[in-house]
Amino acid sequence: MKFLHTMVRVTDLEASLDFYCNKLGLDLVDRRDYDAGRFTLVFLAAPGDHGAQVELTYNWDPQEYTMGRAFGHLAYEVDDVYALCARLMAAGVTINRPPRDGRMAFVRSPDNVSIELLQKGAAQAPAEPWASMQNTGVW
Amino acid sequence: MKFLHTMVRVTDLEASLDFYCNKLGLDLVDRRDYDAGRFTLVFLAAPGDHGAQVELTYNWDPQEYTMGRAFGHLAYEVDDVYALCARLMAAGVTINRPPRDGRMAFVRSPDNVSIELLQKGAAQAPAEPWASMQNTGVW
Repeated sequence: MKFLHTMVRVTDLEASLDFYCNKLGLDLVDRRDYDAGRFTLVFLAAPGDHGAQVELTYNWDPQEYTMGRAFGHLAYEVDDVYALCARLMAAGVTINRPPRDGRMAFVRSPDNVSIELLQKGAAQAPAEPWASMQNTGVW
Repeated sequence: MKFLHTMVRVTDLEASLDFYCNKLGLDLVDRRDYDAGRFTLVFLAAPGDHGAQVELTYNWDPQEYTMGRAFGHLAYEVDDVYALCARLMAAGVTINRPPRDGRMAFVRSPDNVSIELLQKGAAQAPAEPWASMQNTGVW
């Protein structure tokens, strides 16, 4: 038995690909467009770890999706949580929970999927701008 | 960068552990009880694939969680989708989408988390009771 993926629905595929691939840094592993069903599936995964994926489901006809409280977040281990948060912030992504502890941050996808970023190995030493950055919203 | 887990909140930890471990067959990898915060975290993973996990968050003080449409499902590859569905059904789990095609089934956790079960390798030959079993609800 093997975990394959977590599926989330997205309202804007281009914005989602920009976030997950260009900003967060995931690889686009596969994309399948279904003309008859009018939807697209995209499979994303962390570079070098394509076994566990995120499946984006994009329905071509606009739908609205609510984000219930039952689903919490997706979590990724990252090599340098400060560098990734700096890159995300420079790209306009809000760091909802800055890595004040040098270890854990939370951001949100364009569809409000909460994403936890955890420093690989030991926590980094406290550093600005993170140490004094306040939370924004919830995650 | 590496996928760690998908977090979902659960309202009944014992019922969730019974479903995910006893019925679905996941391993309990770690459990952490936080007395001060009054919550428990449980990490589950497929046997032999502990890298990608599901994190259950159980708040000791009752809360209600809605299952928004933005989150779709968790997907697992399984060795024998018929055998697993038979075991789940015998344990009282509704097979929302029976594996009529010998390949894909959907069930739901006690908190309505949708779970996709995909046959490893080639689809199995059509077989009863699955081939003629109707869908139940949505997934």
